Amino acid sequence: MDMERFKRLMAFILEADKEKNILRQTHLSGRGRRENDAEHAWHMAVMLYLLKEYANEEFDLACAMMMALTHDIVEIDAGDTYCYDTEGLSTQQEREQRAADRLYGLLPDDQRDELRGLFEEFEAGVTPESRFVKAMDNLQPLMLNVSNDGMDWEGRSIRRSQIEKRHARTRLGSEFIADYTDSLIRTYVENGKIIDE
Amino acid sequence: MDMERFKRLMAFILEADKEKNILRQTHLSGRGRRENDAEHAWHMAVMLYLLKEYANEEFDLACAMMMALTHDIVEIDAGDTYCYDTEGLSTQQEREQRAADRLYGLLPDDQRDELRGLFEEFEAGVTPESRFVKAMDNLQPLMLNVSNDGMDWEGRSIRRSQIEKRHARTRLGSEFIADYTDSLIRTYVENGKIIDE
Repeated sequence: MDMERFKRLMAFILEADKEKNILRQTHLSGRGRRENDAEHAWHMAVMLYLLKEYANEEFDLACAMMMALTHDIVEIDAGDTYCYDTEGLSTQQEREQRAADRLYGLLPDDQRDELRGLFEEFEAGVTPESRFVKAMDNLQPLMLNVSNDGMDWEGRSIRRSQIEKRHARTRLGSEFIADYTDSLIRTYVENGKIIDE
Repeated sequence: MDMERFKRLMAFILEADKEKNILRQTHLSGRGRRENDAEHAWHMAVMLYLLKEYANEEFDLACAMMMALTHDIVEIDAGDTYCYDTEGLSTQQEREQRAADRLYGLLPDDQRDELRGLFEEFEAGVTPESRFVKAMDNLQPLMLNVSNDGMDWEGRSIRRSQIEKRHARTRLGSEFIADYTDSLIRTYVENGKIIDE
């Protein structure tokens, strides 16, 4: 076994620890503190395993779980871009590509290509794995927000069109889950926590 | 599709959110705050995927990742028991079995049996999956502690025999990684951060 290779893997794994310090806009259940990227990714991977029967298409579970676990690694350098932040979204791609070069570059070449591939696949969102991972990326914060009676939407004056645009992608991964989330969104439009234009 | 089944799955997934509030004794890299169970589990699952070539035996990756992601779920009710806390360890099993009954009981029967099975398999530590997951459960906090120059060992006056007993299990999962961690432990005994009896 090659110690140089092992040390590169460990360097990436230690650097990844910083993902625990990247805060998201979502709050934990029980109106808790803000969630971080590692916690969000952990939750998504658990959901992928438990909800796999609801995916529209068969998919590779281990690959999808790793995609979920590492899809936000670039935010260690690029920061979290809130999904309804128009200004941040305009520079997001460039910031994240630079971050991907540095972070995945810590790995041995074969694993660099594999993990960067999972990240690009997630971003493109056209494979069965990435479609279902994106559905989880939408469902997880929606679940927490609903458990907190919509406080994250209300606190940031989120509009119906913003939410519907984001959650439209859920249907590509799971018709069943999209029906469920559409119904929850309607409830929160009706009770005024999401602004109906 | 059965909405009752889906709602039971979502009830478990939401309850699991509480794992993000269970603090461990380990501190994040950069002498950061204390780590929580969800972050630890996230890191272990990433490591399983990246370090799989170092396992002594072939193993099922998706099962091992799910085992890692959920092995501490019982601590939502039972709390974290520090691995060198003799008094806590004497009541740990009973507390964790009660917690497993309640928490896995939220799931549909088939998934309850599957996830409880993964937890019991982890505890027994005799399958290829559980042996390598246990190696990651040892390597992950050791890596963070070494990145902080042994502050967690030093702060709690940990003795060599305690560490060696815990890390002996790493060798069952990976000879290569056990050689690596044994060498790190020797360094920290020599520099006095671990007490040499």
